[in-house]
Amino acid sequence: MTMQEARQKLTALQHKLAAYGHALALMSYDGATTAPKGTAANRAQSMGVLGEELYLLSTGEATVQLLEFLDEHKAELDEKEQRIVYLLLRDIRRMQKIPMDEYIAYEKLTVEADDVWHTCKLNSDFATFEPYLQQIFDYNRKFARYCAPEKDPYDECLNRYEEGLDCKQCDAFFATLREHIVPLLHKVMARPQLDNSLIRGHFDAARQDVLSRRLMPLIGLDTNHVGLSTTEHPFTTSLGSHLDERITTHYYEEDFSDSMFSVIHEGGHALYDTGSDDDLAYTALDGGVSMGIHESQSRFYENILGRSQAFCDHLLPILQEIFPEKMAGHTSEELYRAINRVEPSLIRTQADELTYCLHVMVRYELEKQIMDGTLAVHDLPQAWNALYKEYLGIDVPDDRRGVLQDSHWAGGLVGYFPSYAIGNAYGAQFLRKMKETVEVDDCLRRGDFGPINDWNRTHIWRFGCLKTPKALFEDATGETFDPTVYTTYLEEKYGKLYGIC
Amino acid sequence: MTMQEARQKLTALQHKLAAYGHALALMSYDGATTAPKGTAANRAQSMGVLGEELYLLSTGEATVQLLEFLDEHKAELDEKEQRIVYLLLRDIRRMQKIPMDEYIAYEKLTVEADDVWHTCKLNSDFATFEPYLQQIFDYNRKFARYCAPEKDPYDECLNRYEEGLDCKQCDAFFATLREHIVPLLHKVMARPQLDNSLIRGHFDAARQDVLSRRLMPLIGLDTNHVGLSTTEHPFTTSLGSHLDERITTHYYEEDFSDSMFSVIHEGGHALYDTGSDDDLAYTALDGGVSMGIHESQSRFYENILGRSQAFCDHLLPILQEIFPEKMAGHTSEELYRAINRVEPSLIRTQADELTYCLHVMVRYELEKQIMDGTLAVHDLPQAWNALYKEYLGIDVPDDRRGVLQDSHWAGGLVGYFPSYAIGNAYGAQFLRKMKETVEVDDCLRRGDFGPINDWNRTHIWRFGCLKTPKALFEDATGETFDPTVYTTYLEEKYGKLYGIC
Repeated sequence: MTMQEARQKLTALQHKLAAYGHALALMSYDGATTAPKGTAANRAQSMGVLGEELYLLSTGEATVQLLEFLDEHKAELDEKEQRIVYLLLRDIRRMQKIPMDEYIAYEKLTVEADDVWHTCKLNSDFATFEPYLQQIFDYNRKFARYCAPEKDPYDECLNRYEEGLDCKQCDAFFATLREHIVPLLHKVMARPQLDNSLIRGHFDAARQDVLSRRLMPLIGLDTNHVGLSTTEHPFTTSLGSHLDERITTHYYEEDFSDSMFSVIHEGGHALYDTGSDDDLAYTALDGGVSMGIHESQSRFYENILGRSQAFCDHLLPILQEIFPEKMAGHTSEELYRAINRVEPSLIRTQADELTYCLHVMVRYELEKQIMDGTLAVHDLPQAWNALYKEYLGIDVPDDRRGVLQDSHWAGGLVGYFPSYAIGNAYGAQFLRKMKETVEVDDCLRRGDFGPINDWNRTHIWRFGCLKTPKALFEDATGETFDPTVYTTYLEEKYGKLYGIC
Repeated sequence: MTMQEARQKLTALQHKLAAYGHALALMSYDGATTAPKGTAANRAQSMGVLGEELYLLSTGEATVQLLEFLDEHKAELDEKEQRIVYLLLRDIRRMQKIPMDEYIAYEKLTVEADDVWHTCKLNSDFATFEPYLQQIFDYNRKFARYCAPEKDPYDECLNRYEEGLDCKQCDAFFATLREHIVPLLHKVMARPQLDNSLIRGHFDAARQDVLSRRLMPLIGLDTNHVGLSTTEHPFTTSLGSHLDERITTHYYEEDFSDSMFSVIHEGGHALYDTGSDDDLAYTALDGGVSMGIHESQSRFYENILGRSQAFCDHLLPILQEIFPEKMAGHTSEELYRAINRVEPSLIRTQADELTYCLHVMVRYELEKQIMDGTLAVHDLPQAWNALYKEYLGIDVPDDRRGVLQDSHWAGGLVGYFPSYAIGNAYGAQFLRKMKETVEVDDCLRRGDFGPINDWNRTHIWRFGCLKTPKALFEDATGETFDPTVYTTYLEEKYGKLYGIC
């Protein structure tokens, strides 16, 4: 094989991987947005077959020989090619350790479990979901042991979503957050509560849709390449490459801010994905590098920008135009206070910025205990409710608003949750660095996301998966990771909002 | 290879074909319903790769050996297995004759052409679409020659959508239609016109959507397995098997009947597909057997049932509930007359039942001429307009409402159109036979499609592709094909409606 032949084969391989990925992602997206209710088993059938084809392609002899050949000749490869070969070989070596029949069975299981979860959530029925969840955790433990027998299985799960992350780092990270957030929350709760009646009432779903379609171009999304659908639990997905991205939302007519922040959050994911350099399309480098960096972008747009005083100045007239009955005659200061009211609550995705990380901590603690066997899946609802009482001081009335609220576990995403909290902390350091060269508040007040997006594109988005998350973060900020930048951001923001000295 | 091994391999092969088919159909469906405008090239990329994989799977040595082995042992196969092997081998032998690079290029071309067509139709811009259409016709001619060098290329195209059909039969069939429809139309046009003001006005799209979702279960669709979306040009598609079916519609706010009859028409396709026996799922026998039989079902529900006096009796109170301002105080006789007004018009899908076949004849004549080289694609708009003048007596004001109105050619469906007219004629013979045992008008008046659907399921749907179209038709009706049954049906219906003796 000449290098030229090998390069051609590498391109063809990546095109195939992208096409199978497109098909599988589109089937999932269809299931979550458009598909009739009774079609999950049919979809699982097709996804099982295509998953097997993808597995055979990815781990087949021809692929392994090609990548090993290229790895042996890596001195002749450029930086991008080297990273592609490294990433593909890493994933193949992981997949080779998982028996194919178990991999296929797990893929089918998660499709079915996701379907069962939708119904169980509606009916607050943990018992029916329990055997699926049990199997999902069992598979995750088993797969982690296959892939990294020397490691604690949960460490391996964490590492899958954020390269290099383990329990030890998470424990330290969450301890820092707890140390600052818990006393701050106590001080906040001792102060008079902020008024959020401005965002509560009746907001027609069709008008909320108008708002979504105003916000998408406003924050810089190219709607020729980014679509919007509705679903139960909002998410973002890429189809085939960063050239076709879909975000989703869910309209609650009693509170428009829920969907508004979903659109901005998912929009942040979509900005990151679609910001990959175009020559990364149909390569292993296309799209976001890790869940932590991904969440740093989604939560940066949602909270750091979206819930800022400066953005409220720009947002208020838009809201007054779309919801005149409710918003006329109010000030942007009132809006700012309404969308930043701190209140320990049941639902993670609706949590305020301050208590949000406590929701993540609950999930982290529970996953860790299930994975190391100190908690049984059967006892999860009870343990969930106990931790909500301990961390947030509230009683969980039913599993729908408790342990069944998130789609992640149903989809097999064990070890994902910590990325949300780490993403928050990354974002605060990105903001501090960005402010050295960008007048962020001025931009937000004008509704001009251009300079902000340019900074993110230059320092983060365009690289796709070329750099490791750590290198990307450190190159962008010129610093190592320091979660106290985030806790300081929270202390300043909520100190001012609640008048705490 | 033992027969047991061969059977297992045959099952696995069909599962793969179904899964690739699912992925490709879902990508097309997504493109026509949900996808952002700028994503066609990205979709074409993935469809090109998966199309190539499907081609390699379908025509690969292992597949051919398996099917030839089974064909040699066909005495040991049951009826279903024999038909499966026959159908798969027939398609493979066809595909083997087309060079793979041309097959892939054609798949990509039709995805791109469909996207270009959407924009060109909006802008009434034939010039931009012309080179795509030229290539599509060129490929169809070339592929037909590869597959059946002994045949006229257009005969081969016709045969692809209706096994055994050729120009000679079509010429005779259309001559019979012309002989009866043209004089009938002249008589109708000489009579006072029916009043259709009842269905014209302003009908909110959201309320039309309510109507669609009432009609779907009413005609017998299981909405757990049949979804509804909106699109430019309504169509129906199966995803993976008959267990996931999608119909589409398009809401025009000035006339609710357009979407209403689209839903019933596409619903007829969906009833046929979803009516396959469940054990046909993921086999080559799943779904409808030919386009002619398919259209016989869609146009049976749309026209023979949907535009009948008896169904109007049931429909009127539903319409009065959904559109009270417009429909209150009117009679079902008025509704019946309004939806059956005969008027030579520009758009095939909006044509009345009587002039409909003339629209099909235009397309048939033009396809035939382009395929045999007597008409250049460049001259198509002019020829189209001339035939509309000749057959329907009307002037075409622009290509949007002329040659660019249908999606079929953009999608590569050359030879498809005659199926619509043949389906109409099949349907009239099915009706005559059905009426021997089913009180069709009573059922329609009660809104009880059960006995009608049971007859269709028993005689047509459940067989999937097990029988040839001809055998299916003759077994169901106990007769050979006779288009004068259809022209008699038209003469009786429109004779009464227009008071022609």
